[in-house]
Amino acid sequence: MTLINGKAISTELRQSIKDEIFEIKKSHPDFLPKLVIVQVGERPDSSTYVRMKLKSCKEVGIEGELLKFNSEVGQDELVEKLHQLNDDTSVHGILVQLPLPGHIDEELITNSVKQSKDVDGFSQLNMAAIFKRSAVPLQIPCTPKGILFMLDHEKVQIQGRTVVVCGRSDIVGGPMAKLLEKRGATVTIIHSKSTPEQKRFFLSHADIIVSAVGRVNFVTADDVRPGVVIIDVGTNFVPDSTKKSGHRLVGDVDFDSCKEKASKITPVPGGVGPMTVVMVLHNLIEAAKREYSY
Amino acid sequence: MTLINGKAISTELRQSIKDEIFEIKKSHPDFLPKLVIVQVGERPDSSTYVRMKLKSCKEVGIEGELLKFNSEVGQDELVEKLHQLNDDTSVHGILVQLPLPGHIDEELITNSVKQSKDVDGFSQLNMAAIFKRSAVPLQIPCTPKGILFMLDHEKVQIQGRTVVVCGRSDIVGGPMAKLLEKRGATVTIIHSKSTPEQKRFFLSHADIIVSAVGRVNFVTADDVRPGVVIIDVGTNFVPDSTKKSGHRLVGDVDFDSCKEKASKITPVPGGVGPMTVVMVLHNLIEAAKREYSY
Repeated sequence: MTLINGKAISTELRQSIKDEIFEIKKSHPDFLPKLVIVQVGERPDSSTYVRMKLKSCKEVGIEGELLKFNSEVGQDELVEKLHQLNDDTSVHGILVQLPLPGHIDEELITNSVKQSKDVDGFSQLNMAAIFKRSAVPLQIPCTPKGILFMLDHEKVQIQGRTVVVCGRSDIVGGPMAKLLEKRGATVTIIHSKSTPEQKRFFLSHADIIVSAVGRVNFVTADDVRPGVVIIDVGTNFVPDSTKKSGHRLVGDVDFDSCKEKASKITPVPGGVGPMTVVMVLHNLIEAAKREYSY
Repeated sequence: MTLINGKAISTELRQSIKDEIFEIKKSHPDFLPKLVIVQVGERPDSSTYVRMKLKSCKEVGIEGELLKFNSEVGQDELVEKLHQLNDDTSVHGILVQLPLPGHIDEELITNSVKQSKDVDGFSQLNMAAIFKRSAVPLQIPCTPKGILFMLDHEKVQIQGRTVVVCGRSDIVGGPMAKLLEKRGATVTIIHSKSTPEQKRFFLSHADIIVSAVGRVNFVTADDVRPGVVIIDVGTNFVPDSTKKSGHRLVGDVDFDSCKEKASKITPVPGGVGPMTVVMVLHNLIEAAKREYSY
């Protein structure tokens, strides 16, 4: 078994982004890539993610700005602000931290970000471009993009392989399945309406499994065949009295049993998570390069 | 084996659309649903389809108008015309007959049709809404919509079933797979990069097969299991000296052998084809009702 070390791969990629920015700045000192994060309210998990993203920006030489609104902000005010940011040529990427409070239409807000600055890749236009065979998306959502990068880094063949994606969210499962299919895989999505028999059947025939359902031990060694490649997107907290916080982060996959059967597997933490964060930087720098035409 | 008689189902639906228009007009004499078809050039197959659609419109009480451009028309002129039609409140649906000549960007043209008038459902916004779990599309492309209607008409259970869609086009395979998944099926798309082993494996385990690849005998009785439901979207012409035209229309499925094993199967012709045409009317009438707020 080979561990797919997302932490190491992301560190490597982060360094190469940093180097690239440094190189561009040498010949173009006016190159100032900038990300604006819009946060509404004070959810502690959101604040943690925002802090991580801003820290990563700083490390590589991207200017990160946080625009915070209190949770009572009106939808119209938010849309107007996004339009201002869309028009602001000094801003290359806009990231609206989800989830938003219930009175705000997430779909509307997500679609108010200009496609070229949509570093999350969640806008309808980017989604349509992922979905349509004839189209090439400007931005790919960070988690699926990070997973593709890991698979390529580990030289996992995709074309002609049988892939099962567990979960069909708009952020991970849906685009992931489509992107793997575009790369030539034959893909089945299993989801909450799949029967236990379907789950068992498809998992047991998969060459590659991407699990993004958010359930502890959703994939166990009994479900999979020897040699499978497993990507674990799950982020589940389980009680753990040995930890100061009282809990511990685990994925969807029973890592200890599956690692014996898998040819390659990502751990949680240290697998998909760090890749997602660095892909924000990657999308941002691609957006900035397009803007400057570098 | 039950034959799924698309011709009969579409005739029934056409009649109910006609009745509905008649009823609405009784209380709202100003209700004048109107479809504009834009055709560029003189492809004989396109002309046939356009003629069929206009004839169907007339039969049910929809005004159909054909706007013909010669094949040298400029892209900008076409886009400008579409914008005029978008703004014309007397027009409820706009259908650009595809394919367009090579010098015209089909994606651009398709996206120039306002979402609410996009009776083909090919625009990026409609596609994104099909793709995203959180969204409800205004319009569903006519072929997948017609297939769902047939399956429901025949009381074929979708949720929990194992479905294989053959082909991943933007017009049929892609949206079909997603719509069946949204209805709770577990779906695998097989496509040109799937291996013969993958094709055999997935077809042989499917409860429902939708074939839209355009290859004669792509699905044979050896590929499928007893009781399968088969929907044949293929339109292939094979030489036939007994026909005046010298050829005959067949689907992707070896009907004669498969009909012995299938529980339900669509014929070609007389299956999916007539459903696709009537769904143009259905999308148009839905669009007109939205416009008039009926």
